[in-house]
Amino acid sequence: MPDRFLTLLARSLPATVPFVGPEAQERARGAAFTARLGANESGFGPPAAAIAAMERAASEVWMYGDPEAHELRRAIARHHGVAPEAVMIGEGIDGLLGLLVRLTVGAGDPVVTSDGAYPTFAFHVTGHGGRLHKVPYRDGAEDPEALAAAARAVGAKLVYFANPDNPMGSWHGADRVAALIADLPQDSLLVLDEAYVDLAPEGTAPPFDTGCANVIRFRTFSKAWGMAGARVGYAIGHPGLIAAFDRVRNHFGMGRVAQAGALAALSDQGHLARVRGLVAAARERVGQIGRGHGLTPLPSATNFVALDTGRDGDFARALVAALGRRGVFVRMPGVAPLDRSIRVSCGPDAALHRFAAALPDALAEALASQR
Amino acid sequence: MPDRFLTLLARSLPATVPFVGPEAQERARGAAFTARLGANESGFGPPAAAIAAMERAASEVWMYGDPEAHELRRAIARHHGVAPEAVMIGEGIDGLLGLLVRLTVGAGDPVVTSDGAYPTFAFHVTGHGGRLHKVPYRDGAEDPEALAAAARAVGAKLVYFANPDNPMGSWHGADRVAALIADLPQDSLLVLDEAYVDLAPEGTAPPFDTGCANVIRFRTFSKAWGMAGARVGYAIGHPGLIAAFDRVRNHFGMGRVAQAGALAALSDQGHLARVRGLVAAARERVGQIGRGHGLTPLPSATNFVALDTGRDGDFARALVAALGRRGVFVRMPGVAPLDRSIRVSCGPDAALHRFAAALPDALAEALASQR
Repeated sequence: MPDRFLTLLARSLPATVPFVGPEAQERARGAAFTARLGANESGFGPPAAAIAAMERAASEVWMYGDPEAHELRRAIARHHGVAPEAVMIGEGIDGLLGLLVRLTVGAGDPVVTSDGAYPTFAFHVTGHGGRLHKVPYRDGAEDPEALAAAARAVGAKLVYFANPDNPMGSWHGADRVAALIADLPQDSLLVLDEAYVDLAPEGTAPPFDTGCANVIRFRTFSKAWGMAGARVGYAIGHPGLIAAFDRVRNHFGMGRVAQAGALAALSDQGHLARVRGLVAAARERVGQIGRGHGLTPLPSATNFVALDTGRDGDFARALVAALGRRGVFVRMPGVAPLDRSIRVSCGPDAALHRFAAALPDALAEALASQR
Repeated sequence: MPDRFLTLLARSLPATVPFVGPEAQERARGAAFTARLGANESGFGPPAAAIAAMERAASEVWMYGDPEAHELRRAIARHHGVAPEAVMIGEGIDGLLGLLVRLTVGAGDPVVTSDGAYPTFAFHVTGHGGRLHKVPYRDGAEDPEALAAAARAVGAKLVYFANPDNPMGSWHGADRVAALIADLPQDSLLVLDEAYVDLAPEGTAPPFDTGCANVIRFRTFSKAWGMAGARVGYAIGHPGLIAAFDRVRNHFGMGRVAQAGALAALSDQGHLARVRGLVAAARERVGQIGRGHGLTPLPSATNFVALDTGRDGDFARALVAALGRRGVFVRMPGVAPLDRSIRVSCGPDAALHRFAAALPDALAEALASQR
């Protein structure tokens, strides 16, 4: 019984994982998905220069990557107009969130998030013994004023806020974000997850102010940059807080191929504009498909669209399963009332076409399952 | 002052990192190293099939890797003749060691290691608030009996034992390892780091027995497999302990390109034998070079050789620096009395030739610095 080796905290943790990958579902159904629209990956891919750089770096894989990721860190800093000391690179936002929680959350420490927001953040908080306080969404969006009020009420160490939001696609303007930052108690650190902000309207992200100590922002190469499989995320914040990651991180965790790919991606500054155009068109198309079958597309500032079924979570779950049986991988929000929607990632026409083709039958099957 | 956001433990941790990368040294000296022989990377490279697979996977990098690494996990299990449930894959042994310590070590918990053994393990223990108890090396090798005695004396949660050892290259036979496992108290878990065991004589690794709960073993693609820059390590142990990693790990942390590369590497089962031959010849050559200049090569079961200078740590440090100034990157043990040696990785002839060419002048400079 190896549980005897575990800490009391580790023994108390569930064995569940935040997300089951599409590959596990493919193995269960015995066939590959033909439309991969569930993980908000970018089927539009990365810049060609990034692929070429990774191909070249494959031959150099016998060498560890630079543990300081010096060049990539400077390139990201230039990209955003901040100092390199304000940037920490890690194995995706997921990995960096885990390190941040480890640095800041002790047993029983209160943490505020939204009920239905990113499960992986909640996973890390629980995993480090923190106490989660969840604020409801308001009108399908995270509620900054309620988050700030909850932070004051419980004395939150961390306040998680995704802008734009996943899984709903909703967003707030930069003024509202700035107001939230100003509104938080002195000892609450805002965890501003901007994984999707490259795809949001101008004016969604406030300007960077890395002199401000009580906010840390997270960006990624997994979404608009189209490099989810390379695992490169980064945090931008006060250099004093950023430096603290060195006390706990896996210094050689960033591989050489991944670093080379992300660095080359940044050299193609036209990529984001191109992808924004493609994603905007795909959002329209997903909305059209949904509306054509009685679903209501919610406004989105991301590379996915939540389609409101107008029914309940059981129905949406049945619909996601029915689409899966037809080779279409989508996901959905995890908690009520958000879970009456399904969440469809923006992808190339061919994938959206397969979604459109599968939807009528899948809807019929989901309806039948409810009778 | 963002320190106010940190836990008391995080505030107490030093900002130092276990290893400075060669790239940081290159930036400091303003020129690239011409012989990269300091990080025990394998200049002999990975199987060609692995490079080809990573090149192909670069085009699929828009997709996350399978969070279960299902295929790779099965291939590793087959490679070692164990069940897939006994295998956990992660971002290098470093990343997995961090997760294991997090799962098992609480504040003040005693942990036993050797004085001078792998600094990254000690980094993780300190980082989780554990208390390190260090046992001296005996005759340049880790001392299994002393480790077991210390484990009993302090009631260690974990006992770290690298076989073969880094930084000395020494090793013990499988019988001695089995005796150590049998010798440990019931509540001590043996952390058996076998990063270099692919390069050791037959009979160094005991057979796998994943029914045994009190040992967990670590292997890597970074050394004999020549894929340090891909960041793929794995643990083999009791399925109950292995399953616990899912409670805390970064599930999407293993990139798609890395998984593809490691999987393809395993398809070339002749690779290890070829690299063993090349490494054995290079070990001979490093020893020869050292002996030619009054240094004593220590026996090694790894892809590096410790060369005993016969002097002290100050001299060895001066020698490492003098080699660095001549473009040759090597490292050395961190603590006395081990630190009178320098550590030279096995690499292709060209790199060893540069080491041989630089050594006489570097020795002269180190000698002069001591006068």
